[in-house]
Amino acid sequence: MFQARRYQHCSTCGGQIEYRIPADDNRERATCTVCGAIHYENPLNVVGTLPIYGEQVLLCKRAIEPRLGKWTLPAGFMELGETIAEGAKRETDEEAGAQIELQELYCVMNVVRVGQVHLFHRARLLSPVFDPGPETLEAKLFHEHEVPWDELAFHTVRETLQRFFEDRRGGNGYPLHVADIA
Amino acid sequence: MFQARRYQHCSTCGGQIEYRIPADDNRERATCTVCGAIHYENPLNVVGTLPIYGEQVLLCKRAIEPRLGKWTLPAGFMELGETIAEGAKRETDEEAGAQIELQELYCVMNVVRVGQVHLFHRARLLSPVFDPGPETLEAKLFHEHEVPWDELAFHTVRETLQRFFEDRRGGNGYPLHVADIA
Ligand SMILES: [Zn+2]
Ligand SMILES: [Zn+2]
Repeated sequence: MFQARRYQHCSTCGGQIEYRIPADDNRERATCTVCGAIHYENPLNVVGTLPIYGEQVLLCKRAIEPRLGKWTLPAGFMELGETIAEGAKRETDEEAGAQIELQELYCVMNVVRVGQVHLFHRARLLSPVFDPGPETLEAKLFHEHEVPWDELAFHTVRETLQRFFEDRRGGNGYPLHVADIA
Repeated sequence: MFQARRYQHCSTCGGQIEYRIPADDNRERATCTVCGAIHYENPLNVVGTLPIYGEQVLLCKRAIEPRLGKWTLPAGFMELGETIAEGAKRETDEEAGAQIELQELYCVMNVVRVGQVHLFHRARLLSPVFDPGPETLEAKLFHEHEVPWDELAFHTVRETLQRFFEDRRGGNGYPLHVADIA
């Protein structure tokens, strides 16, 4: 679940929080009972890549929770100070140590249940040699028939891979996919 | 500027915050000196629409800061519990009281300076009658030559409008635009 109602104290003054609907609003917000500050909670972006080397796709075996031991595309929370593309490239470097040429934005997936939007760029791997970081047990290339579909970490990874293989078979390029993921 | 370093107190326990680099991280994070909780600060999504009625585009004159009195496309912060499309539609309803049929995602614009991503869907207006909410002084349709270019509220609004009029003149449809805005 997304982290709504995660405020107990005001991040400005430390005062007690109550969830109230402000006068000019229609939702309950974390409101400080001492200084009156309102703290908003909003969806976060997870940014990553779909790195391709010839016929193969790069997946990373997670070394951390959630989904420890499951396979994922390199991705993580977008940081302040970067674009979606820069974040996607950074995560690919941090998780796989992979050298890539970033391509177009390929998937924008709403994951309402967890308050996230997952955005994946396609990427061309410049080398099949990887240097996984501490969040990754193993970084490995897979042909389509080798993908561990039952061992994928996240729904958005499965959906992104499925769309990519479909588009590749279709032979008409890689249009943007916008989807809502349960 | 984006709201980095906005934590002075822990939102869990109210304890004093220090900005430190956690052991498994490479950036300073708001870290509680009492309970050890780490509070992350990430970019936020602003979602909205480019509502079209025949040859005209809908703009809203802002009744609130920032940019009070300037013209904008209907847009606002994406909320927990909704998709990008749902948020874009909600903002169009709240700010303009406009009835729309939502169309494709059209612009994804990184505004790194303020820690935001602005996402606009194209939309077809079902009626030229509006019912602006309290955040809007006036909702009005503009032909291209009438757009108040010097009175627009945000760079992303200008960029979205420019791309739309260009694409319309080009006659080859409305592909996704991904851009970085200074
Ligand atoms: Zn307070
Ligand atoms: Zn604490």
